[in-house]
Amino acid sequence: MTTARARRVLDVPLLVEQASGGDPAHRARAVARLISLVEDASPALREVMALLAPLAAHARVIGLTGSPGVGKSTSTSALVAAYRRRGMTVGVLAVDPSSPFSGGALLGDRVRMQEHATDDGVFIRSMASRGHLGGLSWATPQALRVLAAAGCDVVLIETVGVGQAEVEVASLADTTIVLLAPGMGDGIQAAKAGILEVADLFVVNKADRDGADTVARDLRYMLSLGDRRTDDGWRVPILKTVAARGEGADEVVDAIEQHGAWLAGNGQLEARRRKRASDEVEAIALTALRSRIGDLSGSDALAALAGKVVAGDLDPYAAADELVASVTA
Amino acid sequence: MTTARARRVLDVPLLVEQASGGDPAHRARAVARLISLVEDASPALREVMALLAPLAAHARVIGLTGSPGVGKSTSTSALVAAYRRRGMTVGVLAVDPSSPFSGGALLGDRVRMQEHATDDGVFIRSMASRGHLGGLSWATPQALRVLAAAGCDVVLIETVGVGQAEVEVASLADTTIVLLAPGMGDGIQAAKAGILEVADLFVVNKADRDGADTVARDLRYMLSLGDRRTDDGWRVPILKTVAARGEGADEVVDAIEQHGAWLAGNGQLEARRRKRASDEVEAIALTALRSRIGDLSGSDALAALAGKVVAGDLDPYAAADELVASVTA
Repeated sequence: MTTARARRVLDVPLLVEQASGGDPAHRARAVARLISLVEDASPALREVMALLAPLAAHARVIGLTGSPGVGKSTSTSALVAAYRRRGMTVGVLAVDPSSPFSGGALLGDRVRMQEHATDDGVFIRSMASRGHLGGLSWATPQALRVLAAAGCDVVLIETVGVGQAEVEVASLADTTIVLLAPGMGDGIQAAKAGILEVADLFVVNKADRDGADTVARDLRYMLSLGDRRTDDGWRVPILKTVAARGEGADEVVDAIEQHGAWLAGNGQLEARRRKRASDEVEAIALTALRSRIGDLSGSDALAALAGKVVAGDLDPYAAADELVASVTA
Repeated sequence: MTTARARRVLDVPLLVEQASGGDPAHRARAVARLISLVEDASPALREVMALLAPLAAHARVIGLTGSPGVGKSTSTSALVAAYRRRGMTVGVLAVDPSSPFSGGALLGDRVRMQEHATDDGVFIRSMASRGHLGGLSWATPQALRVLAAAGCDVVLIETVGVGQAEVEVASLADTTIVLLAPGMGDGIQAAKAGILEVADLFVVNKADRDGADTVARDLRYMLSLGDRRTDDGWRVPILKTVAARGEGADEVVDAIEQHGAWLAGNGQLEARRRKRASDEVEAIALTALRSRIGDLSGSDALAALAGKVVAGDLDPYAAADELVASVTA
């Protein structure tokens, strides 16, 4: 695709208008294109965000995480269905922070989402954090803005894997759900991975299988050790589902809503929203500064500074001062 | 320790003088203290580096890496002995980029280095990259400066683990040695981890064990597939050692010196030195900018910007512009 063609096709104001209102037939496609811009860290994002800002649209953000095989995708689909029964518009972001290929890889899983494919109250997007330095912390808030502007009442962020991703999800989400399943040794692993700290809500999926009660009991025991209640006053519930049959999804949505009401009541919903915006602004600023330095990589200016350092004419801090000065001038 | 006491004890010019000349009895201790300052990202580093710069001291930098259990520590010790027999002063940096506890954890391994403990031509230091944002790329070049100033002709950087660390070692070192051992399935794993690309020299340690020939043959086969020779003209040698008995260490040093001569002959030694300085200056500059942003985390200024973003009065890019402006003013 030539630049000229890209320019002709990319009519940002039209895309934003289509994503945030008007004809539902155009909306899904416009949302998908805008999130692609986020994925690609397109320079056009600046204009996109400037146009979206006055809408001041906000969605409830739900993080859903857990080890591979616990049924995240099936659970997400069941939750989408439960929210739709309540007449709410739902966005789904499936994020893989590590793999540049996840967008494609995840599409296989998305088969389970097909029941929502023709529902114009559902927006589903697999998102890789390729193409930008800030990673998940940079891309996800902007994708959230797009989905909120498209009228999503709720956005489910589903992350793959266990580890750093959970922590990032928790920092983004209003409510973080940690999903487990029997027979995976997750009870003990949950404690190791620090999952106890990030979960606002535990869901033991595949509850029709042997061992579901054991997982729930282990979790309850570990929660009693951690005693989260004294920390912030929210008593982390442990729910059971059979997501493949949709069983328990309504109860999970009830618990999410209860957590939301609790957050709203004590001012944390607003505080988390501000924290999210603050992190987002910080990530964009840091990326901007980093790319200014990056632009100087291999430049004559940096090469000259490095030469002076090698020769002993300049120490690396003094050279860095000059580099920073040239970047911030 | 009170600040007053810390100030009184930390006489930077004296430390630098002791590290870079004078009485060998003081030197080891002064070097150790200076590298502690690097580990802790001490503000005093700026003064340290300014005092070290005019010395324009340079060491040959050798990276040594490989999976746990291949005998990195034993091999390092054998290489130190081989260099000492040639009358050269040697520094050793054992770096664990991931763990904040590695300094302590590695000390157990350092028992094998005890034979060099009373040799004032050898400086050994386990270094964790705790306390600073830039990690290995930030800390190691500065530790190298200290060791070069202390008169080290050669610095061996030993890294733990396989993965990102290798790439960083390779970017720092003049010559990167990848260590393998029979019976660990390393032959195949080497290719997976991209080790073929970073190695200037392969060493199959524990060569008295069954399977050493197989590892060497597999490596040779993989190298023939990669055909590094056409890339940059250096034919990667595969050597065998029994480091625990010191066997083969002299041949490894010969190969390192051959690689050094090859690098010097085609200008790459100087180019790598400049690249190292360039990366170092960049890392310091980026850390400085990042900490300026970090200083604003939780500040009233950032909170006010985030509030405007939540209210829709400002888009996140415009807010980031204001943040960058306040940082670079």
